Amino acid sequence: MQSYLQENKERFINELLDLLRIPSISADLQYKGDVLKAAEFIADRLREAGADKVELCETPGNPIVYGEKIIDPGLPTVLAYGHYDVQPADPLELWHSPPFEPVIKDEKIYARGACDDKGQLYMHIKAFELMMQQQELACNVKFMIEGEEEIGSNNLEWFVQNNKEKLKADVILISDTGMIANDIPSITTGLRGLSYHEVEVTGPNRDLHSGLYGGAVANPINILCKMIASLHDENNHITIPGFYDNVEELSEAERAEMAKAPFSLEEYKKALDLNDVYGETGYSTNERNSIRPTLDVNGIWGGYTGEGAKTVIPSKAFAKISMRLVPHQTSEEITNLFRKHFEQIAPAGVKVEVRPHHGGEPAVTPMNSIAYKAASMAYEQTFGKKPVPMRSGGSIPIVAMFKQELGLDSVLMGFGLDSDAIHSPNEHFGIFNFLKGIETIPYFFKHYAELSK
Amino acid sequence: MQSYLQENKERFINELLDLLRIPSISADLQYKGDVLKAAEFIADRLREAGADKVELCETPGNPIVYGEKIIDPGLPTVLAYGHYDVQPADPLELWHSPPFEPVIKDEKIYARGACDDKGQLYMHIKAFELMMQQQELACNVKFMIEGEEEIGSNNLEWFVQNNKEKLKADVILISDTGMIANDIPSITTGLRGLSYHEVEVTGPNRDLHSGLYGGAVANPINILCKMIASLHDENNHITIPGFYDNVEELSEAERAEMAKAPFSLEEYKKALDLNDVYGETGYSTNERNSIRPTLDVNGIWGGYTGEGAKTVIPSKAFAKISMRLVPHQTSEEITNLFRKHFEQIAPAGVKVEVRPHHGGEPAVTPMNSIAYKAASMAYEQTFGKKPVPMRSGGSIPIVAMFKQELGLDSVLMGFGLDSDAIHSPNEHFGIFNFLKGIETIPYFFKHYAELSK
Repeated sequence: MQSYLQENKERFINELLDLLRIPSISADLQYKGDVLKAAEFIADRLREAGADKVELCETPGNPIVYGEKIIDPGLPTVLAYGHYDVQPADPLELWHSPPFEPVIKDEKIYARGACDDKGQLYMHIKAFELMMQQQELACNVKFMIEGEEEIGSNNLEWFVQNNKEKLKADVILISDTGMIANDIPSITTGLRGLSYHEVEVTGPNRDLHSGLYGGAVANPINILCKMIASLHDENNHITIPGFYDNVEELSEAERAEMAKAPFSLEEYKKALDLNDVYGETGYSTNERNSIRPTLDVNGIWGGYTGEGAKTVIPSKAFAKISMRLVPHQTSEEITNLFRKHFEQIAPAGVKVEVRPHHGGEPAVTPMNSIAYKAASMAYEQTFGKKPVPMRSGGSIPIVAMFKQELGLDSVLMGFGLDSDAIHSPNEHFGIFNFLKGIETIPYFFKHYAELSK
Repeated sequence: MQSYLQENKERFINELLDLLRIPSISADLQYKGDVLKAAEFIADRLREAGADKVELCETPGNPIVYGEKIIDPGLPTVLAYGHYDVQPADPLELWHSPPFEPVIKDEKIYARGACDDKGQLYMHIKAFELMMQQQELACNVKFMIEGEEEIGSNNLEWFVQNNKEKLKADVILISDTGMIANDIPSITTGLRGLSYHEVEVTGPNRDLHSGLYGGAVANPINILCKMIASLHDENNHITIPGFYDNVEELSEAERAEMAKAPFSLEEYKKALDLNDVYGETGYSTNERNSIRPTLDVNGIWGGYTGEGAKTVIPSKAFAKISMRLVPHQTSEEITNLFRKHFEQIAPAGVKVEVRPHHGGEPAVTPMNSIAYKAASMAYEQTFGKKPVPMRSGGSIPIVAMFKQELGLDSVLMGFGLDSDAIHSPNEHFGIFNFLKGIETIPYFFKHYAELSK
């Protein structure tokens, strides 16, 4: 296996670079053609690697690439999930090289999607090729690669509900998370949910001169700031009534266990150039970004934002506001609480509209399953040490949906790093990580087949 | 005089439309060529109208157009000021017709600068032409038309200081304000000052994924909102320490006098489609936007503002924040107080930078002067009623500067209306107002010459 990887790694990397050159941004309709191109690229590579029944499954949105290799109905089946769409690349001016012209620097591949999720999903296709070529495929495998993850997997649930037979499997395998460090492998065992909104505050019916009207009418930017500021109290608790009602509280023992994960606050601050961290009173940094729910403004805009000065009171101001949810909170519950509260706190001088975007449910994956054990053994084999279980702050809402619709648990074998700058300028993925993923995945198949016997 | 105006009004309007076609946006350097074109246009029209010594006076920025007609050194001299630059036109999508392709609709000229200040300054050039043609010019006149008013008149003070002899005059005449209504003429007797800042809040050194970092680091948008929200208390008083120390407090008698000005709160709310007005407790709408200082956010931006959802914690967030000042506050004092306070309230997790833009001093113009009386008589003659003295909420910082550098008072004969949407999409200027200005200005010259005898 090692020799096949060594002999083909240049080609594997070059194929990934080709995939990264396709700007498959699902959030922006002008890239619709590129999104399709990426889907076809994935389908072609699956076919070449030896998958059967490869097709672009139509959905009301972007197609889902499906492929499978059933070697023996008696063997367990792994359903590998990934996504070929990527986040928008702006702010473009902060990229050191164009986001869709991948470059390799210091043994890392720089491009939008390098890690999230093209680099990670491509590990699965190449691991599959490797197992096929080496005649080592130990389980049946199905691939389900979607193109709408970055806009909320809008049509995946519909697809899953309508293709339960086709998707029948024993476990879902996903590489769309990270690990602690290249020498500290980890497996993600929890994910936060998401509630995402765009809010619009309207003051006067037209932009006004701030001299003639300033002080006499509600300025929608000032009001929006005031409303956003009021969503946290002085301890950075979220003030939406009922927000914490269903939050899973971890025991002191569980928190003590979590606190053992290697972490240096000084290095964390240094890496982000921060004087200090900031967050909810009473919780550590690792707790704040994993077991606690949060509320963040992801974007804000209104008024004059060009060069120079313009003395305007705008008619409207906007923000994108998202909340990360923890187990037992549901996206629907929090979406309703947020909307009701945000409309309620608007003063009489403005009108407020809350438009929910996609949401997603939090999830916890079991650590006592065969799949977790197989994954743990695979990492131990390739990294030389047992992986650490880790709660992630990110969201892969489909993990909860797969459990609900297919009754399947997921195993989250992520090979990215926090420092890979996913969703940010200069996203990258280490070549070490890419190759390590391709090396580790076949061991998972092997151990999973053996443990399933 | 009436007949000359009647016979030439079509041409006057068409000349103004030509001027409005030049996008002389001073805030945006890509319009530098158009700014110069507008200056040359003004100079050519002044020459044609009969002005002498017309020139584009170089400054470190945009040129100042100068011209004069000295008919008798023994007569008083009026120095007419105006500006040929305009505000940026965005948001473009809200204009019903392109901002630099003027159209006439319902007896109003729609274009950026139609009222502020091209339409109003052009009244002076055409009134001068009329007086020259009718041999009615009763005073000497000098013109000083600048091209940087909308970006803070950065070089006008330098020009005035270096051309005191050339600018020697008895009074300054400015049409860059409004009047209450077409049947309620008014003269502006007070102007607010301005302190304008761009602020930048930096959190982490790069954009972060809100799942992986949300809750654990200071989000610069949330922090900026919090900082902005804290600048007003629950009564909408501004919380910057020392902000009100020097504010001129009007007596009850003065406030009672102000309250007599015709004003309908219902119509005001209806015109702006507001459920309610909003502002400082204890003051009326007219007081809030004239005798009270204010703080408004004129623009805000940060994070993802495109279509769809992006779960990012941005590295930076920005806002443009301006304060309108009232007599006895100074721009320098307030600029320093703001900067100090805004830096001080930043929490440890972020870095803050405050960049002051231009400022301007508040001003009150005397009502017992010959100039005010001459203006009042001129309005009475053409409108059939005595004009109301009015404090405006806007700023023309150069009024205080002219007083300081040249020792001259200004008389503010504005013919625009609040509803003209200056600085907003669909700015317009009534043809009634344009022609009424051209008709009224010569009477000012006549009465001013007579009262000066």
